[in-house]
This record gives sequence, structure tokens and C-alpha cells, in this order.
Amino acid sequence: MSNGKQPNLRIPGPVPLPDDVLDLVGSQMINHRGPEYADMLDRMTANLRTVFMTTNDAYFITSSGTGAMETAVVNTISPGDKVLAISIGVFGDRFREIAEAYGADVTRLEFELGHAADPARLAEALKALPGCKAVILTHNESSTGVANPLKELCEVIHAESDALILVDAVSSAAGMPIAVDAWGIDVVATASQKSWIAPPGIAMVTFSKKAWAAYEQCTTPKYYYDIKQYEDYLKIGQPPFTPCLPAMFALDKSLEAMVAEGIETIFERHHTIADHTRHGARSLGLELVPEERYASDTVTAIRLPEGIDGKEFLARVKRDYNVILGGGQKSLTGKIFRIGHMGWMEMAHIDEALEAAGRTLREMQGKN
Amino acid sequence: MSNGKQPNLRIPGPVPLPDDVLDLVGSQMINHRGPEYADMLDRMTANLRTVFMTTNDAYFITSSGTGAMETAVVNTISPGDKVLAISIGVFGDRFREIAEAYGADVTRLEFELGHAADPARLAEALKALPGCKAVILTHNESSTGVANPLKELCEVIHAESDALILVDAVSSAAGMPIAVDAWGIDVVATASQKSWIAPPGIAMVTFSKKAWAAYEQCTTPKYYYDIKQYEDYLKIGQPPFTPCLPAMFALDKSLEAMVAEGIETIFERHHTIADHTRHGARSLGLELVPEERYASDTVTAIRLPEGIDGKEFLARVKRDYNVILGGGQKSLTGKIFRIGHMGWMEMAHIDEALEAAGRTLREMQGKN
Repeated sequence: MSNGKQPNLRIPGPVPLPDDVLDLVGSQMINHRGPEYADMLDRMTANLRTVFMTTNDAYFITSSGTGAMETAVVNTISPGDKVLAISIGVFGDRFREIAEAYGADVTRLEFELGHAADPARLAEALKALPGCKAVILTHNESSTGVANPLKELCEVIHAESDALILVDAVSSAAGMPIAVDAWGIDVVATASQKSWIAPPGIAMVTFSKKAWAAYEQCTTPKYYYDIKQYEDYLKIGQPPFTPCLPAMFALDKSLEAMVAEGIETIFERHHTIADHTRHGARSLGLELVPEERYASDTVTAIRLPEGIDGKEFLARVKRDYNVILGGGQKSLTGKIFRIGHMGWMEMAHIDEALEAAGRTLREMQGKN
Repeated sequence: MSNGKQPNLRIPGPVPLPDDVLDLVGSQMINHRGPEYADMLDRMTANLRTVFMTTNDAYFITSSGTGAMETAVVNTISPGDKVLAISIGVFGDRFREIAEAYGADVTRLEFELGHAADPARLAEALKALPGCKAVILTHNESSTGVANPLKELCEVIHAESDALILVDAVSSAAGMPIAVDAWGIDVVATASQKSWIAPPGIAMVTFSKKAWAAYEQCTTPKYYYDIKQYEDYLKIGQPPFTPCLPAMFALDKSLEAMVAEGIETIFERHHTIADHTRHGARSLGLELVPEERYASDTVTAIRLPEGIDGKEFLARVKRDYNVILGGGQKSLTGKIFRIGHMGWMEMAHIDEALEAAGRTLREMQGKN
């Protein structure tokens, strides 16, 4: 860690990385059109499928997570297609904006900040939208710390329509279960800097047979995110375009480690640490943004007490305790703070973060 | 270098990286929405402008170089717009394919492999294409080792039309002079893994006032590559989407070093080492792909003697001498090999590569 940084980031991604992963990130470049890369890509593709519990195709794209969401849209949805966009916050809105940017006929299904999507209202919305081509939704809304009941929502979609299911799992995948085959998810989108314990730079998607059938009919223009290019090059063990090698090196190791540890164990670990975080926040007399049953296992959003300036709070926590917490986004700016607990994260990290938050609040409230 | 790799890559990107840069690549993550990132982005933007000799806007995008080319197209060209696509090889074809994918009305101006674009033929083509919205062209065609006479081509375009000039400088920028303002280039596209001495993961573009005026009229759908998002976030010192931090850390250092060394010195260094490479290849009795006067200063393409299997040649050079050379692409596959000499590159690296190539050829020809 030559920048001398301690792993003190407690934002919901990028996640801090352990030293052995940082060593891999700083590995010498290799030929992305050579046999070593081909072996790595093959191994990573197989492991990614294991984590997503799927036999669907899986691809790595050099991009942020938003690029993975765009990949889901531009390869399956054509201009004028009816799309139902479920949103419970900033990232649901972003998915909708992408679909709108590419000319989809979008119907919104929105829920109040801090709440999860309601399966009953989803069923109604689908009944009112015959011929819906795709439902786009966020698994884990990191802006509010709410996890949607993805399995239940997928069941409703399958019961009420033939729509494709495109899921933004950027901040949930590898930290919370996503059974792509069992739940019938057509495209899942995620990114390396979250629970995957890797730096930002690589987006990942899975594509079902139904998504490929939609691709064949899809008239949306595309090039860099044209999934067919990734498929064609995968057959010869190559990426279509020069890949972000530092993120690939780290991700290769992480995927191997995840499959070796067992994904159920990883999901349990995330749940345990999330529970610990929520309990700790409540012990400080603070209120969580989401209802407990929909609270995310990868990020906890906590309301700031009345009268506390959120910007000053974050600055003080950093200045006095060297801990970087996440702030609120859009309409929640200054009103909440967020603690990320995905990927490599230990109880001690959470305790430090909570203690820093608690002490800072007491200081700001003049209580010590 | 924890993967134990020697910096033995002699392909035209990714470039091998010195240890101090790899240390930076493996630095701990930072908050991309915090003040430290804002300072870095500000410094990098200023330095990028210096290298491109421009006061135009400059942006960093998490993507490969192809994403930078797509960014140039989707922000300035609308469906149906007349575009003149100059191609002297694989990467010129790619730029054309991107414009076609987004519905431009493309006229092709193609030159034989190994040749540069001819200014006189460009002038004729522009005369025959009134109302041409944009000329898209490659500065350095790394597939054939040919550098187009960019300054001269820009002069012709300005003399004959009002077209935008969009330049793929992925494999030339930072190794060969590109005077964006003096030559009147509207968008220049490049990527971190080339002469910039950084790993792959970051694409870079500059945007002129004229490019921004075209943006305002542009109807092409876009989201991730919508340059307005990068501009809006740059104002608050942030990226719109989580950036590839490992490549940014390295690029920050490289840009600082380039500006400190002076870009003229860097261009001279590239020219000297390219000359040395060409001289060495001819000393082995080999023929260059391009005419000498259009030979690239960042990559040398060399014809293999009749009867030599190019695939076996590359495999033997790697096996026997631990040197990774570049092969030919598309129709040149198996017929040529390429030596990259961009970024961090020393005479000894080139001599090793040439000696390995020479010995291998003699062995394959049964001469020792």
C-alpha cells in the first residue's frame, strides 16, 4: 500500500482491500491475447457462474457498474418497448434513466425512500401493462440501505407476465444470495469494487437464453456494450477490448477464494456483520432508514439526529477518527450516513466506525 | 510485482510498468467522492491538457480505448449525419464500425495496408461530400505500424470543409505530438495502457467548443458515455460513476512526470527508440510493413520472411527468450510481428526483443 492508506473506507464501495489483494492489483501487465489470460478468463467465467448459481453465459466488461446496467438495457430492449421500472431510490432511478435514454416506453413503479418494492403493487402494475417487455429493478438500493425481496418479486413477474427480468445487483452480488437460474433472472449486472473484494474497473453480467433471444430482435444501437462481441471473443479466450488487468487479477483471486469458502458461508458472514451493524446503530440511539426486515446485508443507512449537519459530521469523523463513512445522496444528502459492510470486513472495522460516529455525534450535540 | 512477471511485454499495449508505478497501481482504495479524489482529478485534468497542448475540456472515463472512440461518436454525430471515415487498417475500420452502429451515413476512404492516408485523396473525398458532419480517423494504426500525417490531414479537412475532426489517438498520444488546439482537433480519444505508462482501465477524451455545439444538436442515445455527465460532475470534483482507481493512481503519477520531463523530450525519446528499432529490424534483413516516412514512433510492424509460420515464431520467441511480441491482426495474422516501444521502454528492451526475433528466425530457417 504505497499510498500509505489504512483500509479505513466504510463507504458502500469501493471496498478497502487486504494487502494480498493489493499486491495482485499491482502485478505486472500480461498479454490479454495470450494463453495466460485465456486460462484466467476461463476460470473466472466458471467461478462467476458458481457465485450466481447459474449455467447462463457470464461476461467481464471494463467499465463501472453503470456500464453493466447499460449492457443489460441496450442488448435486450428496443426503442418503444414497454418497460416497467421499479425504483426505491437513486439507483432504481438510474436504471430507469438508462432505459429512457435508449427510447424505451417506461412505466414507473416507485416506492417511498427507505421502503422496499411491494410485490402486490408489482402484480397490479404488471396486470395494467400487457406486453411488458422487461422489468428493470435494483436488488440492493445502496442509497437507502434497502434490499428488495428479489426472489418474491421475480416470482410475481413470472406469474403475471413474460417480461424479461433485468436486475441491478451492483451492490448486493457476492454479499447476498442471487439464484439466477432458480429465480429466472435474465440479466444480472454487478461490478468489481463491491462485495467482490477487488478494485473498480470491471463490470460483470450474466445473460440467459431468453435474454439472447431478445438480443436477436433488439434494434438499439450499441458497440462497446454489444454483448455479442464479448461472446465471440470469449470463444477464443480473449476480451474484445483491452481489459482492466489490475481489477481482473484481484477478481480472479477473489472468485477462487469465494468458491473455495462456499458462497453460503459468505452470505451468512455478510448477514451476521449487517445485523451487528444495525444493532450497534440502535445502541447509539439512532434510527435506521429502512424497516428492519428489508435492511440490506451490504450497507446500513442511518438517520442523523435532528439538527446535526451531515457534512460536518462526516468531516469530523474523518478528521478525528480517520474513518470514511458514506453520506446521503440526492434528497437524503446531509440527513443520513451510511456504513458499507461488504467484501472484506471485520467486526472490529464496524465497531471502530460506530464508535467514531457515536463520539462525534455526542461532541456535536455538546454532550461531552 | 507479486505475479513474479518480468516486464517482458513488447506488444503495442498494455505496456509493461516499472516497479514504482506498479506500487501505485496497488495502492489502497480511496473515496471517489472525497477531497483527495477531487484534488487528483483536478491535477490530472490540467496535466492532460498540457500533454495535448489544448485549453479544451478533458475527461477521464472508466473504459478501454474503444469506449473513448465511442464517446467521440455518440456525443457529436447524429443518425443520418454524413461522416467520412478514413481507414488505413483494423482500428480505422473499428472507428467506422462504431459510427455505422450508431446510424451515421458513412463514406469510406480506405488506403492499402501499410500505407498512410493521402492528403490529396482526402481533399477529393471532402469535395465530393458537401455537408460532411465529421471526419473520423486514426492517428497511429498500431496494426500496421503506420502513423498518419495528422497535422497535414487536419489542414486539408479545415481547408475543404466545416467537418468535426475526431481522432483515435489511442496508440499515439503521449508518444507522438498531437497539438489539439493548433491543429484544430475537436475530439481526441486515447487510453491509459499505451504511452501513458499506466495499466488499462481509463480512457481519455478532449472536447472542443465545436464538439460541444455538436453535442447540443446530437440525437444519438447515450448514457454511460454521455459527456455532459462527466462535465457536470467534474465541476464538483467527482466522476459520475465509480472510476478505475488503480489506473487513475498510476496515470496521475505519469502525467505529473510527463509534464515535469517536458513533452517534447518524451516525443524525441519515442522517435529515437523507434528509429533504433527500425534500424535493428533492417539489420536482421527484415522488411518493415510501412514506408519509412510514415513509420510509427510507438510500434514497429515487421514482415516475416516467406515460409515462416507466424504463430510458431511468436510461441518460440516466448518459450526460448521469454519475450512477448505482438502478432498480426485480421488479414496480417501470421504474416507480420510487431514490437511495441511506447511509454517506459529502454534500448536494452528493444535489443533483447530484436535479438530474440533474429535468433528464432535463424533457428526456424535452419541456419544454426
